[in-house]
Amino acid sequence: MSGQVDLALIHYPVLNKNKEIIGAAVTNLDIHDIARAGRTYGVGAFYIVTPYEDQRQLVKEIVSHWRSGYGATYNSDRKEALKVVHVCNDLQELYKQVTVRGQRPVVLATSAQSPDSVIWSYPQVKEKIDQGDRILILFGTAWGLADDVMEEVDAMLPPISGGGSYNHLSVRSAASIVLDRLLGADSE
Amino acid sequence: MSGQVDLALIHYPVLNKNKEIIGAAVTNLDIHDIARAGRTYGVGAFYIVTPYEDQRQLVKEIVSHWRSGYGATYNSDRKEALKVVHVCNDLQELYKQVTVRGQRPVVLATSAQSPDSVIWSYPQVKEKIDQGDRILILFGTAWGLADDVMEEVDAMLPPISGGGSYNHLSVRSAASIVLDRLLGADSE
Repeated sequence: MSGQVDLALIHYPVLNKNKEIIGAAVTNLDIHDIARAGRTYGVGAFYIVTPYEDQRQLVKEIVSHWRSGYGATYNSDRKEALKVVHVCNDLQELYKQVTVRGQRPVVLATSAQSPDSVIWSYPQVKEKIDQGDRILILFGTAWGLADDVMEEVDAMLPPISGGGSYNHLSVRSAASIVLDRLLGADSE
Repeated sequence: MSGQVDLALIHYPVLNKNKEIIGAAVTNLDIHDIARAGRTYGVGAFYIVTPYEDQRQLVKEIVSHWRSGYGATYNSDRKEALKVVHVCNDLQELYKQVTVRGQRPVVLATSAQSPDSVIWSYPQVKEKIDQGDRILILFGTAWGLADDVMEEVDAMLPPISGGGSYNHLSVRSAASIVLDRLLGADSE
């Protein structure tokens, strides 16, 4: 039995380029690209986490356009993808929503840096999924998740490397690659 | 010796949702996301192929903003990524530009469908790269590359599968995953 994988895209607390804590604005294509990748790899839910009411409203309007508005007729594949999207105020609400019968899933954070934390390899996490563990993976917007977030997770996934020292991927690319490494059906 | 991999994002001829041949508009985030992934995985060049003069001009302005304008000072990582971007009119010009000493690289096309063509597996292509072959990978915008494009390539890469039948990834996600499968430094 394969365990469920959920994703969350965190807009607060994240870092700006000067490593200060900020709240980032929601990016339309983050919702679409990560929902489409999520649906392709069979994730259970994709949470957009933002403390700003207007931003949560925006996400709900975008999702509703594609799920039941004109977009649903225009492109039914997109409707299918956006079904996995949920909206959350903050990490506390997120952790509450994913807790089932008092049990929080294994929570993993992602970072482009090699963090000073417990790191689980991709094959290690893949094995947990195959064993039926529920997994929640957190992605940060802007310049990445704030340190406070890392303190509440079970482990980190290794930074994605392309062989060199440059690894400034968009969060859309990073989420897609992580899903393929953990849930890709073939490497053929 | 590892061979060079180049990417090209084709805006004509591609298909619309009714499988008719169209020219697609350039999407700003395609340039950024695929350039960033390309730079991360060490690709040699990323060609934006469009027959429309105003669109080529737009790409050049975006790239110049980040390479030498205000963007270059604001974010030097982005400057680094956008160095790999080149602009081309059409496939003929593309093939001419990538031909070195009369030798065209191995040209691979990508598709979300299982095409009725020669398919090379990811490990097979990885091996060619390791052996020093030059590879050019074509990605289609809109609903994918037109059949005419497929007829001029050496082979197709397999559609990316997440296990189910749904595989409607954005071209940004697909390109990132293909690069990771072919050039990813680790799967750990």
